[in-house]
Amino acid sequence: MHRMSLEEAEVLAKAVLNAQGFNQEQTHALSQAVIAGQRDECHSHGLYRLLNCVKTLAAGKVVANAQPEVHDHAPGIVRVDAKGGFSQLAFEAGLPILTAKAREQGIAALAINHCVHFSALWVEIEAITDQGLVALACNPSHAWVAPAGGNRPLLGTNPLAFGWPRPNGQPPFIFDFATSAIARGDIELHHRENKPIPEGWGIDRLGQHSQNPADVLDGALLTFGGHKGSALSIMIELIAGPLIGDLTSAESLAYDDGAGASPYHGELILAMDPERFLGSTLEDYMARAEDLFSSIIAQGARLPSQRRYTARQRTQKEGISIPESLYQELSRLARL
Amino acid sequence: MHRMSLEEAEVLAKAVLNAQGFNQEQTHALSQAVIAGQRDECHSHGLYRLLNCVKTLAAGKVVANAQPEVHDHAPGIVRVDAKGGFSQLAFEAGLPILTAKAREQGIAALAINHCVHFSALWVEIEAITDQGLVALACNPSHAWVAPAGGNRPLLGTNPLAFGWPRPNGQPPFIFDFATSAIARGDIELHHRENKPIPEGWGIDRLGQHSQNPADVLDGALLTFGGHKGSALSIMIELIAGPLIGDLTSAESLAYDDGAGASPYHGELILAMDPERFLGSTLEDYMARAEDLFSSIIAQGARLPSQRRYTARQRTQKEGISIPESLYQELSRLARL
Repeated sequence: MHRMSLEEAEVLAKAVLNAQGFNQEQTHALSQAVIAGQRDECHSHGLYRLLNCVKTLAAGKVVANAQPEVHDHAPGIVRVDAKGGFSQLAFEAGLPILTAKAREQGIAALAINHCVHFSALWVEIEAITDQGLVALACNPSHAWVAPAGGNRPLLGTNPLAFGWPRPNGQPPFIFDFATSAIARGDIELHHRENKPIPEGWGIDRLGQHSQNPADVLDGALLTFGGHKGSALSIMIELIAGPLIGDLTSAESLAYDDGAGASPYHGELILAMDPERFLGSTLEDYMARAEDLFSSIIAQGARLPSQRRYTARQRTQKEGISIPESLYQELSRLARL
Repeated sequence: MHRMSLEEAEVLAKAVLNAQGFNQEQTHALSQAVIAGQRDECHSHGLYRLLNCVKTLAAGKVVANAQPEVHDHAPGIVRVDAKGGFSQLAFEAGLPILTAKAREQGIAALAINHCVHFSALWVEIEAITDQGLVALACNPSHAWVAPAGGNRPLLGTNPLAFGWPRPNGQPPFIFDFATSAIARGDIELHHRENKPIPEGWGIDRLGQHSQNPADVLDGALLTFGGHKGSALSIMIELIAGPLIGDLTSAESLAYDDGAGASPYHGELILAMDPERFLGSTLEDYMARAEDLFSSIIAQGARLPSQRRYTARQRTQKEGISIPESLYQELSRLARL
């Protein structure tokens, strides 16, 4: 393993992105997301993900110097056209208007269009909870998942993320999960390691449950939670697809046309302002939410994201480590 | 079984509610919800549910002549204080302002406070999709469900419902599910019939998975979908509880104080206007949503609510039927 400080990791990430042709603004936004993933030890969204950024650029599936266009679309809606760039810079561009609208209206939506997407949603959720707002975000992806009762890929892994700000400097309550039973990458990993996958992750081409990763990669993933998870996944297709004038997961996969690039689609982010809802009773009700969290922890259950926050505390002090081979590959891409 | 037309069923429902002391407006709103449930053959939310309304009133846990108060709280928020009445009349009172706000702002929230709740959320969702709007609704209930990794009841069965309007007079895409693995009533049913329950529905007092319904009623239900379903359920506690200045499921159960009445809490309903989001591209993108539905159906999967719509077509022609004993009990309560 190769150890480095978070600062060194950021320098490396920026060097890779710059060397590969991303402009200054895109490089900054992308490296922030990747470093956040690495810092919280979400390795698949960490430095490793830079390889995918580079692959997507090489495939001509992302615009390296895209300049997002912000449209103040309605009192409760801000739209950002990412212009074919990655989602991060578009999100940054829309965030100030989203938060201003949420504070004024009580609730507001940020619709990002025409973006290439790879990041974990919790990064964006946390940027909103940092402003004291409640946040909800979702997006389609590539059509790898069958609807409940079906037998062919149609839905994306369609993540759903939610955040609730907490008082006294505590990290926010955040969850961020795929509505698929598992990430496609986990099935690929089992395939490479020649290991069977657990029951419930996917089906083969004939729609039969299968524990053979090759058959499932050739068939379809399943959603989590049976017909309920499937219904949620369809909701995400609708509200982060047609509702915001963007692609479904099936349309995104068709657009990819076998390139294996990151999905190209839209993203819907909602923000709600507890202060606008609660006025002078804000403190009382935020304290009741804290009671709920205390009751969860008191029975030995963990809040989601706890593992991330623990990792964050450690890596901020001790730095991070990545496989030496990944370090070498990134250094090569950075032309160091 | 006792057969009757939907009109006869409505007359019976209104007679029961009137005779038991609900005023004209409350009776009208309540009977509409109950008849909708019966019409769609959601029997537990049909005429049967009147017994629970009566029980809740007898326990002093609902205000029979409550007059909801509507507050235009913010550009994107309408609040309705149900004044201790059932939720239905409060929803009716808030609906016109919610839809007007959604059309103007793009997205708006209806927060119902201090309501007693028994209805399926799809009834309200459908009232919103009927206006061409997208809808999302949720509420806490009584604390009967343990969080993932926990061993004690803390969360409600916390339903989540979503609706998407469809063109050409087609019934909307709607789902409405409990975030618990199963309704508590289903466990009670197994208990009465002395049948074991499936693995995954609940845990005993010690937090161990159990298939004994009595032990689970004494312990806790589980959420659907493991830690993901649990995270969703916690989100519902937060956004339909503290965010709108109302009770969590634990607080609602404490308020009930053993009376066995319907839960007393708030409800959050969001509405989004596709026309405000999409403008002149509305028709194109609504057609893309139809493509998604077609692709689901083409693989032999069903859209949620299909069973309800099929039942509706039948009962509108052929009427409904309820057990003779229920009919007798309702007639007695109606003092017919």
